[in-house]
Amino acid sequence: MFLDKLNWRYATKKMDPSKPVSEGKVAQIVEAIRMAPTSSGLQPFHLFVIRNPELKSKLKAAANAKDLVTDSSHLLVFAAYDTYTAARIDEVVARHAAERPGTEAALDTYYSNLKAAYLPRDAQVNFEHAARQAYIALGFALAAAAELEVDSTPMEGFDAARFDDILGLADKGLKSVVALALGTRAAEGDWLAPLKKVRKPAYDLVTDLN
Amino acid sequence: MFLDKLNWRYATKKMDPSKPVSEGKVAQIVEAIRMAPTSSGLQPFHLFVIRNPELKSKLKAAANAKDLVTDSSHLLVFAAYDTYTAARIDEVVARHAAERPGTEAALDTYYSNLKAAYLPRDAQVNFEHAARQAYIALGFALAAAAELEVDSTPMEGFDAARFDDILGLADKGLKSVVALALGTRAAEGDWLAPLKKVRKPAYDLVTDLN
Repeated sequence: MFLDKLNWRYATKKMDPSKPVSEGKVAQIVEAIRMAPTSSGLQPFHLFVIRNPELKSKLKAAANAKDLVTDSSHLLVFAAYDTYTAARIDEVVARHAAERPGTEAALDTYYSNLKAAYLPRDAQVNFEHAARQAYIALGFALAAAAELEVDSTPMEGFDAARFDDILGLADKGLKSVVALALGTRAAEGDWLAPLKKVRKPAYDLVTDLN
Repeated sequence: MFLDKLNWRYATKKMDPSKPVSEGKVAQIVEAIRMAPTSSGLQPFHLFVIRNPELKSKLKAAANAKDLVTDSSHLLVFAAYDTYTAARIDEVVARHAAERPGTEAALDTYYSNLKAAYLPRDAQVNFEHAARQAYIALGFALAAAAELEVDSTPMEGFDAARFDDILGLADKGLKSVVALALGTRAAEGDWLAPLKKVRKPAYDLVTDLN
């Protein structure tokens, strides 16, 4: 149960590189990302699953939480579309039309309206919208990892431009937005592990309007 | 299991207002939101749990998926900080210091650096960052709802300025970013229910770098 793991999970600060996450569990986490809902079904991001040690060493130099990059067994990098284009939206329409016969007319209406709204917007507005969708998938990945008792640490604060360069993203119209290190908490050396989890109390975070 | 519900869940298009979600399940979904990880533990958003029929009627007029606003039993609105301020960050530091005795010096160093980075930034940059964190929590809410077999539909595309006005958010320094309708799928009348779920195939969405 994911809901039983809300306190089990934490942003692991020290992972044990001798305990890699099984590929079966990684596949389930990736599947949760793939199935995550996104606005208008666009899935406007790409996921890189990085195991390659040399590549991780390069990314480490551009990361904040450096040791996690190399002590994790899998580094997931979420890269969002730098903007929306007609081609990218048309690809979504074509897939839906192929898998849902008879919906072509409705799809055309819906996505024509979407294109009219999205394509004239600033690329930055579209990128931010795409990045938010990637964060839904990040939430799914974190939930899946917790359910499987896989340790995971979300990572912002890296040098995104250098990540993009190392991963060759500019040519693909992608920009890295967030990463997730997957691994196994080390038995010792994690300063966060013994500390109490801290969250806002519900009365500060939530307002009921009844 | 959340992972067993990836295909069960879908963006329900027609909810049955005679079948409200139990408050026990809503409480578990809200708890998942509260426990969701956020960048530097900031939790830079507020959650409104809306049951009030009059308020829902007002929001309906400003929403895209109008019937879902009133046919859902609970409408969750995520509102992100409009920017980061020293006071908002200091509140996080104070809570952590109170709940983690002995960490005051480390907290001071960490969050002083954070303030130096965040406070001079454009409010829009900070708002976008805060909005992304709310989307992690949205992912957790969607995962929790699926696990509990609660139907849920994420909603963008509403008139955010009108939502903010109706909810009185401007005074609170909040901006609505996304909503989540919770309810029960109607037995009839949901055009999406019989259709196949469509997602990008893994080879389009994911690149393994081994």
